[in-house]
Amino acid sequence: MSLIFRPLFEKFSSTYTYLLADFESKEAIIIDAVQETKQRDIGLIEELGLTLKYIIETHVHADHITSSCPLKERFSDAKIVLGEANSVACADILIKEGDILAFGKYKVMAMSTPGHTDGCMSYVVDGKVFTGDALLIRSCGRCDFQGGSADKLFDSIQSLFALPDEAAVYPAHDYGGRTVSSIWEEKAFNEMIGGGVDKAEFVSRVNAMNLSLPAKIHVAVPANQVCGANIISDG
Amino acid sequence: MSLIFRPLFEKFSSTYTYLLADFESKEAIIIDAVQETKQRDIGLIEELGLTLKYIIETHVHADHITSSCPLKERFSDAKIVLGEANSVACADILIKEGDILAFGKYKVMAMSTPGHTDGCMSYVVDGKVFTGDALLIRSCGRCDFQGGSADKLFDSIQSLFALPDEAAVYPAHDYGGRTVSSIWEEKAFNEMIGGGVDKAEFVSRVNAMNLSLPAKIHVAVPANQVCGANIISDG
Repeated sequence: MSLIFRPLFEKFSSTYTYLLADFESKEAIIIDAVQETKQRDIGLIEELGLTLKYIIETHVHADHITSSCPLKERFSDAKIVLGEANSVACADILIKEGDILAFGKYKVMAMSTPGHTDGCMSYVVDGKVFTGDALLIRSCGRCDFQGGSADKLFDSIQSLFALPDEAAVYPAHDYGGRTVSSIWEEKAFNEMIGGGVDKAEFVSRVNAMNLSLPAKIHVAVPANQVCGANIISDG
Repeated sequence: MSLIFRPLFEKFSSTYTYLLADFESKEAIIIDAVQETKQRDIGLIEELGLTLKYIIETHVHADHITSSCPLKERFSDAKIVLGEANSVACADILIKEGDILAFGKYKVMAMSTPGHTDGCMSYVVDGKVFTGDALLIRSCGRCDFQGGSADKLFDSIQSLFALPDEAAVYPAHDYGGRTVSSIWEEKAFNEMIGGGVDKAEFVSRVNAMNLSLPAKIHVAVPANQVCGANIISDG
């Protein structure tokens, strides 16, 4: 046994949280933890006897509130990690392209993948890439708030597409019950950018998304800029 | 690239469907497909260019309607597989303990795991075990209808616990957003049977479950006894 890998789902915002740990050393990271499911996640970390090293966010979310701060309250040695373009005081580490974090014998390589927001990061671990809202399964993040840019997102997804074809793609959300894809599949079948779509066409597709704002945006963005501190919740 | 493995989620009944395929030969199986998500699953099978060989059920479900029959209509060479204790005419193969199916270079080994229903099967593929409603994450199936027996379920879970500790456990349901566990975790932490609970205590815990009947049972069981044929659905 080597990597403990637990994708976890929060159904109200259709958000995936990922817990990864090195079985031998028990060092662990969690990516995109959610306020509503913090007790489940804390319980699992404690049950498995893990030492949480990093609480990692792909970005400042607009659709749900992070549990970074409550997790850090429980696991006080853990460091909160956010992309450097996010000027939020609650982060312990502002990470940038190419930076490496380690848990046990595993490495987390940071990729700067702006576009959905200006501070979006993706993370590569053990043949998997955690793409946040940059690259979704057959889709991609919207680009109409928080410094979003379809132009930048196109370039970011091209850098993700330069990963090995067999890399498994784990997004921050899926609204259709899909849990994982791969780089080769998204290159071929992604409905926004697959099959060799060029930047102009991609930008026009993103601009045509015409989505309503996330229900929680006016609560979630300020809350997430302080890493979910002081949230009154029964979650 | 070798095994394509796609866990898929149906949120209304919190059911997991599993699509597995051999990347080289493109031969595939699907386990516990659901009526509501059949278009998603058919779309994915077709997009990936897979040849569906087996449509496998862990058991005759009481909480959702299978899409076995609609899948077979679309992929007419596929065989519907159910445990031999289920006397349903729509099955092409009634499978029993120790039987082996193959897709590409992968093998599916059938385990008879009665208790939740009398015809429950589990399936071992490539270090993973698909446990249906026999063994759930930190829980187990109820035993109060369709020939259920807590006594038999205890023995079935013991046979699952004889699998390698590192075998990944993929159940038919999880109601808390967990997607996977492992044999060692369930041996240690399962709230019904973990930590060395004996049969008498297990039976008493199962009998104390006191659950209401699944909302769909009076529709789902008869529908699933004909493998989901002739269902009017917009799914």
